[in-house]
Amino acid sequence: MNTKRIGQRTIALAHPPSVISFANIGGKFEHEGPLGSYFDEWNEDSFFGEKTWEKAESAMQKKVLQRALDKARLKPKDLDYIFAGDLLNQCIGSSFGLRDFHIPFYGLYGACSTMGESLSLAAMMIDGGFAKRCAAMTSSHFCTAERQYRMPVPYGSQRPPTAQWTATASGCTILAAEGPGPYITHITCGKIVDKGIKDGNNMGAAMAPAAYDTLAAFFRDTETKPQDYDLVITGDLGELGHDIVRSFFEADGISLDKNYQDCGLLLYDRENQDMHAGASGCGCSASVLNGYLLTELQRGTWQKILFAPTGALLSPTSSFQGESVPGICHAICISTKK
Amino acid sequence: MNTKRIGQRTIALAHPPSVISFANIGGKFEHEGPLGSYFDEWNEDSFFGEKTWEKAESAMQKKVLQRALDKARLKPKDLDYIFAGDLLNQCIGSSFGLRDFHIPFYGLYGACSTMGESLSLAAMMIDGGFAKRCAAMTSSHFCTAERQYRMPVPYGSQRPPTAQWTATASGCTILAAEGPGPYITHITCGKIVDKGIKDGNNMGAAMAPAAYDTLAAFFRDTETKPQDYDLVITGDLGELGHDIVRSFFEADGISLDKNYQDCGLLLYDRENQDMHAGASGCGCSASVLNGYLLTELQRGTWQKILFAPTGALLSPTSSFQGESVPGICHAICISTKK
Repeated sequence: MNTKRIGQRTIALAHPPSVISFANIGGKFEHEGPLGSYFDEWNEDSFFGEKTWEKAESAMQKKVLQRALDKARLKPKDLDYIFAGDLLNQCIGSSFGLRDFHIPFYGLYGACSTMGESLSLAAMMIDGGFAKRCAAMTSSHFCTAERQYRMPVPYGSQRPPTAQWTATASGCTILAAEGPGPYITHITCGKIVDKGIKDGNNMGAAMAPAAYDTLAAFFRDTETKPQDYDLVITGDLGELGHDIVRSFFEADGISLDKNYQDCGLLLYDRENQDMHAGASGCGCSASVLNGYLLTELQRGTWQKILFAPTGALLSPTSSFQGESVPGICHAICISTKK
Repeated sequence: MNTKRIGQRTIALAHPPSVISFANIGGKFEHEGPLGSYFDEWNEDSFFGEKTWEKAESAMQKKVLQRALDKARLKPKDLDYIFAGDLLNQCIGSSFGLRDFHIPFYGLYGACSTMGESLSLAAMMIDGGFAKRCAAMTSSHFCTAERQYRMPVPYGSQRPPTAQWTATASGCTILAAEGPGPYITHITCGKIVDKGIKDGNNMGAAMAPAAYDTLAAFFRDTETKPQDYDLVITGDLGELGHDIVRSFFEADGISLDKNYQDCGLLLYDRENQDMHAGASGCGCSASVLNGYLLTELQRGTWQKILFAPTGALLSPTSSFQGESVPGICHAICISTKK
C-alpha cells in the first residue's frame, strides 16, 4: 500500500491509464481563434439550438460526451464513471447535460481547474482497479458566466484590461486501463491558496500563487525541472497570471522561459481578437487539452507535457462580503510513454 | 486489476478503510432535536460568531474539521486529501472554510448527497493506495440555503407542508488505511435520475427515484436484502420521499418496513419541532452520520448499516427555466467488521 505516493503530494500511477478518446466543442470565437482547426464541433449560435444559455451549456456537455463515445465506438454503459462539473450555480451544466446517459456520476466543483480535477480522479479510479473506463469533462459558456458572475451580457458593461474572456467550450477525455496512449503518469493535487487578491476582474493574479504552489510541489516530488517536459501549460492564468508564475519560479532560480504556456493565451488571437488578458473558464483548458494538446501528443510533436489547470474558488456572494479570491491548481503529467 | 467491482456498479473494497475520527456541529434547532446529545458542538447563534450566514457556514466546516483532527490527535499535514463540497453557489462553504488548513483538496458538488460522495471517494483513494488518511465532509445552513434557493429568511415566506428544513449543520469523517473500525466495505455510485418532478418544494419526491435506483443496484450487486443490514438509512428524503422509496421496493416484493430510516426524519422532533416534511441539506446526513450513526456503530448497537445520502441537482435558474429536478444517491456500507 501507499507505494504510489512520491514526495509530499504527488502520485506516480503504477499502471498509467491511457487516453482512448477525446472531443471538444466551441462557440464562434473559439472556432475563429488560432486553435479553431482542433475543434471537433462548433456552433455560430451561442444558444446551440436551445432556448437559454444555461441549456446551451448543458447541450455542449451532452454533445461532447456523445462525440467522445462515438470516436471510441463506445456506448454509455461502457463507462464506469463520469467525473464532471462546471462553473454554474449547483453545476447544472453537468447535471442536466449528462442526466440522459445513465452513467454513474461523481459531481465536482473545482472552478476552472475542473478538467484537471476530473482527469486526476478518473485516472486514479482506473489505476486503483475501481474502473475500466471513465470520462472526465467540463464546460463553460461566456454568456452564462457573465450574467452569473458579473453582469448580463445585454447590459454591455465595460471590462477592464485585466479581465479574461470565459470560453464558450467543453471538452471530454475518456481514459481506460489499456490503450495506445498518451498516458496519465503523474498527478499532484492542489491546495487552496489565497494570497489576498480581491479583484474579481484579475483572476490570473489570484490563481497564479496556486499554480506556483502545485507546480513547485510537482517538480520537487518528481525531482524534475521544467526543461524535462516538452511543454508546461497552465489552465487560464492569462497574460498577468502567466507572468506572475514565471517570476515566482525565476526568484527560485528556475527558468520557465522556453516551454511555459497557458491555455488562456492560446485559445484566442492575441492581436485580432480583443479578449483582453486572455481566455478563462473551465471550457478553456478543457477544449485546449481535448483538441490541440492531445492531438499534438498523438502526432508526436511532444512526448511529455505537464498540464496544470487553475481555478478561482470565489462566488459573487463571497466577493460582495469582502472576501479575497482563493485559487487552486491540479497538475497532471501526460506522456506518450508509460 | 478491476477485481474489486461486483455486479454492475458496486465496489467491494479489498482493504476496507477504517473510520478513525468523526465530528459534527449544529445550530440551535439541531441541538434541541432528538439527536441533540450526539452533537460535538453547537451554537445558539446562527451566525456562529461571524458577520454573515455564508461565513457562518464556512466557520462550521473549519470547526468540524479541526475537531475531527483533534479527536484523532492529528495535524492538518497528516491528511493526504480532503473531499468536500456544499450547497452554496461555487461551494464557498468549503473553499473558504478549509483554505487555512493547506491540505490537498478535491472539491465536490453532489448537493445533499455530498457526504456519500466524499466518503466514497475518500475510501477508494485509501483502498487504491493513493492516500493513508483522508477527510470527507460537507455542510449546510438553513439561512444561506433559504436565501439562495427560495427567499431570504427575513421575508417570512410560508412553506408548504411538503417542504423540508435545511439543517444548519456540518459533519466530518476521517478515514485511514488502518484502524479499529467501523470500516467502509462497499460503495455504489449513483446515477442521475430524473422522473420529471418540478416542485422545488417537494425534494423528497424528486430524490426518491434516485435512492431506489442506487439501493436496488446495491442489493442486486451484493446479492443481499435489506434484512441483511441492521439499518438502511437514506439522506434527506423526508416523510414523502421515505414513503415513496418504501412503496417502490414493495412493488418489487421487497419489504423495507423493519429497518429503513431517513436522516431527515431523525434530526428534528416530528411532533414538537415543526419542520414540515423533515430535515434536508448536506448537513443533515453529514451530522447524523458523524454523530448518531458512527457513535452507535462504535457502541455495538449495530454491526452493519447501509448509508445512502440523496441529492437534488437543481438550481433556482434551472427551475425558473422550467426544468425538472434530477436526483442522485450514493450508497455506502459501513460495518464493524472488515
